[in-house]
Amino acid sequence: MQAELAWLEWVRRAAARAPRPEIRLGIGDDAAIVRPRRGCDLVLTTDLMVEDVHFLRRRDPAAVCGRRLATRALSDLAAMGAEPLALLLSSVYPPALPAAWPRQFLRGFLEAASEAGAELIGGDVSSAPRAGKIVFDVIGAGQVPVRAALRRSGARPGDRLFVSGALGEAALGRQLVHAGRSPRTALERRARARHLRPRARWELGRALRRRASAALDISDGLATDLRHLCRASGVGAEVVAEALCDQSGKAALDRALFGGEDYELLFTLPPGRQPPRGFSLRQIGTIVPVRRLWLLQHGRRAPLPAGGWQHWAG
Amino acid sequence: MQAELAWLEWVRRAAARAPRPEIRLGIGDDAAIVRPRRGCDLVLTTDLMVEDVHFLRRRDPAAVCGRRLATRALSDLAAMGAEPLALLLSSVYPPALPAAWPRQFLRGFLEAASEAGAELIGGDVSSAPRAGKIVFDVIGAGQVPVRAALRRSGARPGDRLFVSGALGEAALGRQLVHAGRSPRTALERRARARHLRPRARWELGRALRRRASAALDISDGLATDLRHLCRASGVGAEVVAEALCDQSGKAALDRALFGGEDYELLFTLPPGRQPPRGFSLRQIGTIVPVRRLWLLQHGRRAPLPAGGWQHWAG
Repeated sequence: MQAELAWLEWVRRAAARAPRPEIRLGIGDDAAIVRPRRGCDLVLTTDLMVEDVHFLRRRDPAAVCGRRLATRALSDLAAMGAEPLALLLSSVYPPALPAAWPRQFLRGFLEAASEAGAELIGGDVSSAPRAGKIVFDVIGAGQVPVRAALRRSGARPGDRLFVSGALGEAALGRQLVHAGRSPRTALERRARARHLRPRARWELGRALRRRASAALDISDGLATDLRHLCRASGVGAEVVAEALCDQSGKAALDRALFGGEDYELLFTLPPGRQPPRGFSLRQIGTIVPVRRLWLLQHGRRAPLPAGGWQHWAG
Repeated sequence: MQAELAWLEWVRRAAARAPRPEIRLGIGDDAAIVRPRRGCDLVLTTDLMVEDVHFLRRRDPAAVCGRRLATRALSDLAAMGAEPLALLLSSVYPPALPAAWPRQFLRGFLEAASEAGAELIGGDVSSAPRAGKIVFDVIGAGQVPVRAALRRSGARPGDRLFVSGALGEAALGRQLVHAGRSPRTALERRARARHLRPRARWELGRALRRRASAALDISDGLATDLRHLCRASGVGAEVVAEALCDQSGKAALDRALFGGEDYELLFTLPPGRQPPRGFSLRQIGTIVPVRRLWLLQHGRRAPLPAGGWQHWAG
């Protein structure tokens, strides 16, 4: 109990920042209070992060894990077109964990939250049972003007399919870091940074409001997340392999299709509607009426293989 | 991935009920959308439940665990004076867990949610690593009129201290059930039901809006939770032992002071303000200026011992 109180006190101090008007009550009571701006709905999402499933304690630095968890929630908010407001964090810690680990974790977590303008407003903490693993659950809360939220279900045949950023770079960075290899090229330097400092696309999400017909974020790999979008919209898609990535070769294409943790946005634009300016975007294909996914490569059309990044369990 | 999709589909069907207007989007997209009633703030809380810390799989029926987890979040909302709207549920399951367990758990969870008028609108699911334990995190969302939320920090010297219900009955019920003993008296039957079918006091929480000067819910035992209230308000309290419970004897008093999982409300009323009608309430003491906790028993005043229910880890 005392340890829990001391930890909460530390978190409260670490989380303190210039208050934003939408947060009426933060850490310290039975619950937090949020007041969305007038004319806005509240968007809520939650994401788990489990030791030995989503990260390895020996390998992944605590601050990177913290940054990644916050980014997962912020990326869900971005995919809805929501402006990030607040995060809550529930943590299960093994009793023997050195105190430096949660502190470093929280530093990375709060860094990402702060960049997005989101406050840590609450959470829960529990000890893990004997031999138990670290488990986190993040809750993201954002606001979006009424009826302006982006959904997965609005894609229609003839819409063009876009992604932000360069898919697969995070996966390349993960390979480099886990192999202990220093980056040798500009691409590898970029990839390493993408893995160690992921960033959600909430500015793009806001710019896509009332513009994109459907959107979601790519966290489990394009092939998997595109399937979610098409399933929700009742459509299919054709993806052009050459548009997916700048590098040639099967490894680069596989990373672009199946590499996880990109935290980029995948979205569709109806015919005649222009993509927003000022973002790194590429058109990678089109929506088709038949509910199947195709990959166009060297002028040939083949079924897009299923699969996606299954974290460490895979 | 297929197993996850099938499970989410099952959850979505199980969670389906008459929609309430505040829920704009439920399970199935990147996030859920909630629109509090005009003039209301949104209240957010989160609570962990960890196998071998908060429950034992061999001993506690899955449906009871589910009901209890939902009740924990609903009780936090009650303590803020909030009307329950929605719950989200994140679950970490060991791969070898029989499918009946999560289904029974969810049945109990949804039963408690439905009684409170709250919808399950989202969540996350992950497999546990090898030898990992079941972990749940519940997120509760409710609405409360602007500036009407109950807080812990408003108690002032001279306020009267009240609790709802009969403290310690849940602890007695837990003892009976875990000992495998059938209830023999009316009290034991009530206690057993309180343990197996806990219920949060959200109606009372609403009735206390703009009436109570401070409130919180009793989940870790009166002694611990009263300490939280006094600490947040910068005051102390005197508790009358005889007012705490109807049964005599040290065991009954200990259960009332330290027994957990009561999910009752502890609140203070300023002088002259009347408690709401139609609820089972008792005055158990008064707020004093000196920041200490006292127990009055047989006309003598002694420091209220610290401590509270530490779940199974204690």
